[in-house]
Amino acid sequence: MRAVTIQDKELVVEERPDPEPGTGELLVRVRAAGLNGADMLQRRGAYPAPPGSPPDIPGLELAGEVERIGPGVRRFGEGDRVMAVVGGGGQAELALVHERAAMPVPEGLDWPQAGGLPEAFTTAHDALFSQAGLGPGEHLLVHGAAGGVGTAAVQLGRAAGARVSATVRREELRPRVEELGARAIDPEGFGEQGPYDVILELVGASNLADNVRALAPWGRIAVIGVGGTGPVGEINLHMVMVRRARIHGSTLRDRSLEEKATAARRVEKQVLPLFDEGRLTVPIAATYPLDEVEQAYARFEAGGKLGKVVLLP
Amino acid sequence: MRAVTIQDKELVVEERPDPEPGTGELLVRVRAAGLNGADMLQRRGAYPAPPGSPPDIPGLELAGEVERIGPGVRRFGEGDRVMAVVGGGGQAELALVHERAAMPVPEGLDWPQAGGLPEAFTTAHDALFSQAGLGPGEHLLVHGAAGGVGTAAVQLGRAAGARVSATVRREELRPRVEELGARAIDPEGFGEQGPYDVILELVGASNLADNVRALAPWGRIAVIGVGGTGPVGEINLHMVMVRRARIHGSTLRDRSLEEKATAARRVEKQVLPLFDEGRLTVPIAATYPLDEVEQAYARFEAGGKLGKVVLLP
Repeated sequence: MRAVTIQDKELVVEERPDPEPGTGELLVRVRAAGLNGADMLQRRGAYPAPPGSPPDIPGLELAGEVERIGPGVRRFGEGDRVMAVVGGGGQAELALVHERAAMPVPEGLDWPQAGGLPEAFTTAHDALFSQAGLGPGEHLLVHGAAGGVGTAAVQLGRAAGARVSATVRREELRPRVEELGARAIDPEGFGEQGPYDVILELVGASNLADNVRALAPWGRIAVIGVGGTGPVGEINLHMVMVRRARIHGSTLRDRSLEEKATAARRVEKQVLPLFDEGRLTVPIAATYPLDEVEQAYARFEAGGKLGKVVLLP
Repeated sequence: MRAVTIQDKELVVEERPDPEPGTGELLVRVRAAGLNGADMLQRRGAYPAPPGSPPDIPGLELAGEVERIGPGVRRFGEGDRVMAVVGGGGQAELALVHERAAMPVPEGLDWPQAGGLPEAFTTAHDALFSQAGLGPGEHLLVHGAAGGVGTAAVQLGRAAGARVSATVRREELRPRVEELGARAIDPEGFGEQGPYDVILELVGASNLADNVRALAPWGRIAVIGVGGTGPVGEINLHMVMVRRARIHGSTLRDRSLEEKATAARRVEKQVLPLFDEGRLTVPIAATYPLDEVEQAYARFEAGGKLGKVVLLP
C-alpha cells in the first residue's frame, strides 16, 4: 500500500507492506482521511503516536470500505462502509481499525464528509455532553468555531437545543458559521456577551481568565485545543470557586480501546441519526489526493478555512 | 438575644431583638457555632453575607435546640436537636434556620462537635463525592488536612474506601492526622508521592501546577479554599488535557435554599449514619464562650490547630 510517512519532519508518500488484520480488527480500504491539529504536532515530533499505532504514518481518522476482516469480527463484513477515530495510520491506502472503534457511515454521506466526521464529531460530542453536560436552553460559547471541531460543536449545540455563540477570528467566515446555527462574534470582547453555561475552548489559554469571568453559576469549560495561543495561562481560583465552575481538559488520542469504543457508541446513538435526518453536515474546506499531502498540511496550517481538510487516498 | 456583631471590623457582642421564625423556619437556641475562614473574610469586609442573612452577625454553621417553629414547619418540633449550614447569623444566642437546611444532631454527639460539624462535613462531602466523584480504591490527597474541612475530608475519604494522603504543614500535627486515617506528608514534594485520583485543595493556587502534574488520568481537583497562599496561579492547559483532568471550584455559602437543602439531605443520608456508628468524629481544637469571641477568632487565625474552633453561646 501507499502511505503518508513522516521522515525527519518531512511528509513522504511511499510504499509500505499491507497491514494484516488481527483478532477483532478490520482492514479498511481508506477513501478519505481528515487532517487534525495532532497531525501537525506529530509531524514536528511533538506528539508521538500511542503504543500500538504505526509510529510514522499520521492520520487520526478515516473512512472507507472493509477490505478484509480479522478473526472474531462480528459487527462488520467485507464491503461495509465504516469510519473511525484511530491512534494513527489513517493517511494511507489501507488501515487497521478495531471493530469496536468503527462506526457505520450514514447512508447518503459522501467520502470526504465521512473521512472528516469521526474526530471532529466525537471530540465535540464527548466534550459538550459527556464532559460538560450541555443541556437544552443553556448558552454555549464555542471558541475557534470555524474549524472541524468548532463547526461540529456549533451544530451539535443547536441540535441539542442550546443557544450557541461562537468566536470566529476572520470576519469573512462569520456568516458561514451563522448558517450553522450560531451567533458569530469577534473574539475581542466575548466576555461581555455572556454569561455562558458551557464554553468549548479550541484556541488556547489566552481566553482562560475571561472564560472564567464570563461563566454562569455552575458553568463548565471544556478545553480540547490550545494550538492557537498556547497552553499556559493565569487563573483565579477564587473566581472558579464563586462561579462553582468546572474545567475539563481532554484528548481522544491517548484513550484506551474501551474508552474510544464507548465514545464511538455514543456518537452512533446520539449523532449519526441526526445525519440521517439531514440536520448535521461536515463542512469541507478542501480535499487533496495522497500525493498532495504537503499542500493539504499547508492548507490546514494556513487557517482561514471553514471546516475540514481531507485527504482522498 | 445576645449576638456577635461586626462593627467597623471589630467584633462586638451586643443585645439584638429576637428573630421571628417565618414560614418553614425554625428559631434555634444556639448551643454551639463553629468558626470558618469565611468569618475571617467577612470581618475584614471582604465577604458580605448573602441576601436574606443578617448582614452584620457572622456564623455559617450552628447547632442547638428548636425554641419555636414558624408556620408550615413539618420536619422538626420544639426541643429537637438540630444543626445546619446557614448564610450567616449563627454566632448568636438565637438564629433562624429553614427546616429544609436543618439536620438532626446524631445521638451521642455533644454540642461542640455538633456546632462544628455542618460546614466542614457538608463542604468536604460535597467536594469529594458530589463534585469529584471519589470512589473506593482511589488515591485522595487532602491539602491542608489539619483544619476543619481537612479533618472531615480525611475521615470521609477513609470511610468511603479511598487511600488518603494529606499534606500538613506543621510536623507536630501530622501524627494526629494519621490517627484519622491518612498518610500525613510534608507539603514540599507532595508531587512525587502521587499519582492522585482526587485532590482536595484547601490551601491555595501555589499548589496548582504540581497538583495537575501529579494527577492520574481522569483525575479531579476540587478547590474549596485558597486562604493559605492566595487564589491566583499559573496553569498548563495542555497538561490538563493530557491528564483528561477536571478542576472544580465551589463555595457553599452563596448557594440557593434548594441547593443547600439537597446538600443537607446527602449529608443526612451518607455522613450522619457514620457518626451513629462511631466511625467519624469532629476534632475540636478549642471552645470559647460568646464573650471571648475575639480570642476565638485569634485562635482560628493563628493556625497550628487540629480541627474546629467553636463558640458556645
